[in-house]
Amino acid sequence: MRIGELGDTAGVALPTIKYYLREGLLPPGHRTSRNQAQYDDDHLRRLRLIRALIEVGGLPVAKVHDVLAAIDEPGLPVHKMLGAVSKGLCTPAEATHDPARTDARRQVEELIERHGWQVSDKTAEIDIVASVITRLAELGHPGFVTVLDAYFEACQRIAEADVDYVARLGKLEDVLEGVVLGTVFGEAALAAIRRLAHQSTSAKRFGPA
Amino acid sequence: MRIGELGDTAGVALPTIKYYLREGLLPPGHRTSRNQAQYDDDHLRRLRLIRALIEVGGLPVAKVHDVLAAIDEPGLPVHKMLGAVSKGLCTPAEATHDPARTDARRQVEELIERHGWQVSDKTAEIDIVASVITRLAELGHPGFVTVLDAYFEACQRIAEADVDYVARLGKLEDVLEGVVLGTVFGEAALAAIRRLAHQSTSAKRFGPA
Repeated sequence: MRIGELGDTAGVALPTIKYYLREGLLPPGHRTSRNQAQYDDDHLRRLRLIRALIEVGGLPVAKVHDVLAAIDEPGLPVHKMLGAVSKGLCTPAEATHDPARTDARRQVEELIERHGWQVSDKTAEIDIVASVITRLAELGHPGFVTVLDAYFEACQRIAEADVDYVARLGKLEDVLEGVVLGTVFGEAALAAIRRLAHQSTSAKRFGPA
Repeated sequence: MRIGELGDTAGVALPTIKYYLREGLLPPGHRTSRNQAQYDDDHLRRLRLIRALIEVGGLPVAKVHDVLAAIDEPGLPVHKMLGAVSKGLCTPAEATHDPARTDARRQVEELIERHGWQVSDKTAEIDIVASVITRLAELGHPGFVTVLDAYFEACQRIAEADVDYVARLGKLEDVLEGVVLGTVFGEAALAAIRRLAHQSTSAKRFGPA
């Protein structure tokens, strides 16, 4: 298909597609003449993935670039590639040498150990959780960390369902795309479902009988 | 304390504090002369809450305004006030009359019913989840909805822990602040913990023995 049809099918404006081509997010079409190129279903699929990462995932273009690069890199072992994708998606916590943060980090490491998780101690998410604990303690909620055991249990359940789902996709390329989509979209869905659960739980406890 | 000390204690620059005062996020200090005012621990606490919502929650100033207004409004029944806070925190899904979206919405309503949740059908989060289902189907993942049962179960567990925590805070004002903090920070923590769980689960399944 021509670039116009690609845009119409994906619902993306022409200047936007040209921008993605210039930024290298979308691979170039197959040239048919000096100023014409053809695009196929792989382009369409990639274009939809880019839109999803930006619109639903709220990722900046540079992050989209990193994530796509991780999907496209051949020859990495699966769990390394999954790690690279996850790293591309993650916003690192503010760096600090605050003793309260060091203490909070130890609490997260204890949670990881208690739940028997196998996680590299270089994972940025450990610091993100530690940063949440520290901020909440500063705001007068040192006890929030006691809730996190429930979060760990719940996430164990979620991760098993997620990994089952992507493992069933079979082809490595599909698995990786599934991981990206599942991370970004799953996060949006999870946050919304947690709020629905809050609404339901507090309606049952505090609402009119 | 004077405004300078307030800023130093909270780690917030003076022009930023003045901006929050102008925008009505932070209530004015107690005037002691024509151009001096005193601030107390309530100001400090509120200032830290504002910073947290902006920095960790990534909320724009207008949203922070709505959320604080919900906390400050007296006389609303608790579950209504919780709803208002949650609404202030929520980014609505794109509006659409797409039949696929209507179908996805029905799937979410079925999930809510199957799990026995008590949720208003006007809740914006229903459309957010429906929008995720629709986008994933467009991207070749119509089966993702099957994973959502696990998300509902997990969120039930999380919401109970969250509501237990805030209910223990006792004073209504503290409960509401707890809900805001728990929603925003809990979401950040949950997303990070889910990624840790992914890493662990895929390391166990796909990693070197």
